[in-house]
Amino acid sequence: MGRIVTLLTDFGTFDGFVGAMKGVVLSHAPDARVIDLTHEIPPHDIRCGAWALREASQTFPVNAIHIAVVDPGVGTKRRPILISCREQLFVGPDNGLLSLAAPRGDAWLLDRRELFREEVSRTFHGRDIFASVAGHLAAGVSPDRCGSPISSWECIEESRPTRRGDSILGEVLHSDRFGNLVTNIDIDVLDGTTKDWMVSLNERPIGTLRGTFGDVGPGEWVAYLGSSGFVEVAIREGNAASNIPVKAQPTVTLWKETRQGKS
Amino acid sequence: MGRIVTLLTDFGTFDGFVGAMKGVVLSHAPDARVIDLTHEIPPHDIRCGAWALREASQTFPVNAIHIAVVDPGVGTKRRPILISCREQLFVGPDNGLLSLAAPRGDAWLLDRRELFREEVSRTFHGRDIFASVAGHLAAGVSPDRCGSPISSWECIEESRPTRRGDSILGEVLHSDRFGNLVTNIDIDVLDGTTKDWMVSLNERPIGTLRGTFGDVGPGEWVAYLGSSGFVEVAIREGNAASNIPVKAQPTVTLWKETRQGKS
Amino acid sequence: MGRIVTLLTDFGTFDGFVGAMKGVVLSHAPDARVIDLTHEIPPHDIRCGAWALREASQTFPVNAIHIAVVDPGVGTKRRPILISCREQLFVGPDNGLLSLAAPRGDAWLLDRRELFREEVSRTFHGRDIFASVAGHLAAGVSPDRCGSPISSWECIEESRPTRRGDSILGEVLHSDRFGNLVTNIDIDVLDGTTKDWMVSLNERPIGTLRGTFGDVGPGEWVAYLGSSGFVEVAIREGNAASNIPVKAQPTVTLWKETRQGKS
Repeated sequence: MGRIVTLLTDFGTFDGFVGAMKGVVLSHAPDARVIDLTHEIPPHDIRCGAWALREASQTFPVNAIHIAVVDPGVGTKRRPILISCREQLFVGPDNGLLSLAAPRGDAWLLDRRELFREEVSRTFHGRDIFASVAGHLAAGVSPDRCGSPISSWECIEESRPTRRGDSILGEVLHSDRFGNLVTNIDIDVLDGTTKDWMVSLNERPIGTLRGTFGDVGPGEWVAYLGSSGFVEVAIREGNAASNIPVKAQPTVTLWKETRQGKS
Repeated sequence: MGRIVTLLTDFGTFDGFVGAMKGVVLSHAPDARVIDLTHEIPPHDIRCGAWALREASQTFPVNAIHIAVVDPGVGTKRRPILISCREQLFVGPDNGLLSLAAPRGDAWLLDRRELFREEVSRTFHGRDIFASVAGHLAAGVSPDRCGSPISSWECIEESRPTRRGDSILGEVLHSDRFGNLVTNIDIDVLDGTTKDWMVSLNERPIGTLRGTFGDVGPGEWVAYLGSSGFVEVAIREGNAASNIPVKAQPTVTLWKETRQGKS
Repeated sequence: MGRIVTLLTDFGTFDGFVGAMKGVVLSHAPDARVIDLTHEIPPHDIRCGAWALREASQTFPVNAIHIAVVDPGVGTKRRPILISCREQLFVGPDNGLLSLAAPRGDAWLLDRRELFREEVSRTFHGRDIFASVAGHLAAGVSPDRCGSPISSWECIEESRPTRRGDSILGEVLHSDRFGNLVTNIDIDVLDGTTKDWMVSLNERPIGTLRGTFGDVGPGEWVAYLGSSGFVEVAIREGNAASNIPVKAQPTVTLWKETRQGKS
């Protein structure tokens, strides 16, 4: 049974680029099982690509090979790398793209020219380096024959929520296709419980933290612990992202109302 | 040879959601053959998803497993279900999405927690329930071990054309990517023949029912029996949907001109 | 191991059309390995489809079967054909779509009705003829049993650059997702070297021909030899296509500055 090889890019599918990468993988490993993660990462948005790669890759079985290409620095000195993490392999540019999915593990600089395509263009390493190396990996070449070991790689710094008194201040990192706003506040920050937390987005009160958007009526704002493990703010059957004033980084505040009151 | 597992969602591919579902399927059934039907169903448009699922699934071989997720009610009381129809399996929410592709057959409520992912989020049953159950099915678990039998499920009511005198009045149910308008008028309604029918859209006369849009000149309106078996109205090499006044539901009328005339 | 069957269409994935084609292939060849090239070719843009098919198919291994459908003339007299080129097979309409990927080779008119779907619609040959024949090919039917030999097929004329004195005048044929402008000027036209060439786009001077966009600063215009082997003009981390005045066909001029000077 062939190895699973996934692709994540910002190439869109308007051109033949993605198809060309698949062909390269299959030319080295004819039995590889090519799986699209997404090709709709916004052009050059490394952070968005890193987020999607983490979300998508974590459910895959061991031995999966992931090719990820969001690569504004192609052709410059940024390094092509390979990381082995959680018994999965990640191939792509060393610009932070792989770092949320593969924050640790063994890594290699891809410097074995014989594993590249014969002619390496300076603008399409996705085809000429990454797909080619991934094809060789899928065909059975071991990771440590693909390059020279390296001990570190570019990592994306993720902002962390802060505490101010009893409140937690977080940020919106991402909005999904439905316009739901994903924050950087996870369950650990909430002291392990989703109970009794009040939420506001910028200055807008959202109400208590709910279980899901089905807990409010259609058109109403709602906050809940999302499927990625982070607090999300949404409008049920609506689009929250298009209903907030444009700000560089929307702020979400959580706090607990004192139950005892004043009297 | 691994089982065929298809995916149809309204998730788009902007995020890692679709990739995460594929990973779950492959983690249970490493040899499954994952096939994308579409992820571009308009958000929350159950009817459009149901239409596409019927169109796409009917050509597949027996034993195919179809996962369909257009699920505005995720996390509420709507049921997760499995239907066996035409020797294919359909997994998804019980909101009508499966009902055009699988209007009859055996069905089960998915209530075997041990077939779900360990932690089931309240917002992403596509990953945590549907992909997980489909993965187990692909790995050989039989349908009747996936849940408790049920005898009915939500069905989308499709409007039927009506007769007024010698005329047939139908509705536009759908427009495809090219802007072609698909009606609810099929060959049976036309007394089994496409011959001699005249067509109008709202008040616009379209002419006789043709064989294909190639039968008129570029830029001209045309009506013909489409590939799904329903009458369609189109502009050759143009976009009919963007050239009709916005109405809730455009009406199509067909009638036969009397050959004998008045004299 | 099943045969590789790729799909390239202008159908988008809003509907079930692409899924229906995949089902037909798999119903004839259950072990076929279905690979998406792209479904986002602009509607009816044969030239764009031909370009993408060439780009994508050339990296695939021998025995790959490519189905390509951009087919404004479906249902008219344009012929359905099969071409064998570079030990790959190409199935689609005879309208030029296949001709950049398969400019020569053996070819057949698809006239064996028994290899089509039982009912052939006049508007969806992608499903009823092309996917069906490709499925039979994937199942082992030999190409010469699929139709009658033909000796020629529609070819897209690609414009060639011209020389005026020491200058080379080319055209922009295509812009990719990033807005990079791909010209018709290849390395042969440049006398085999990328050195010392000066470039202008319409009247705008771009500077010397570079190795990659990483050779200039972000936001700057740059010309370089692209990954398809043609000169491209781009804005680093920007979108060149949306930053040129709309003209039917932008012109690119290359020339060499005389090093010796006048004195």
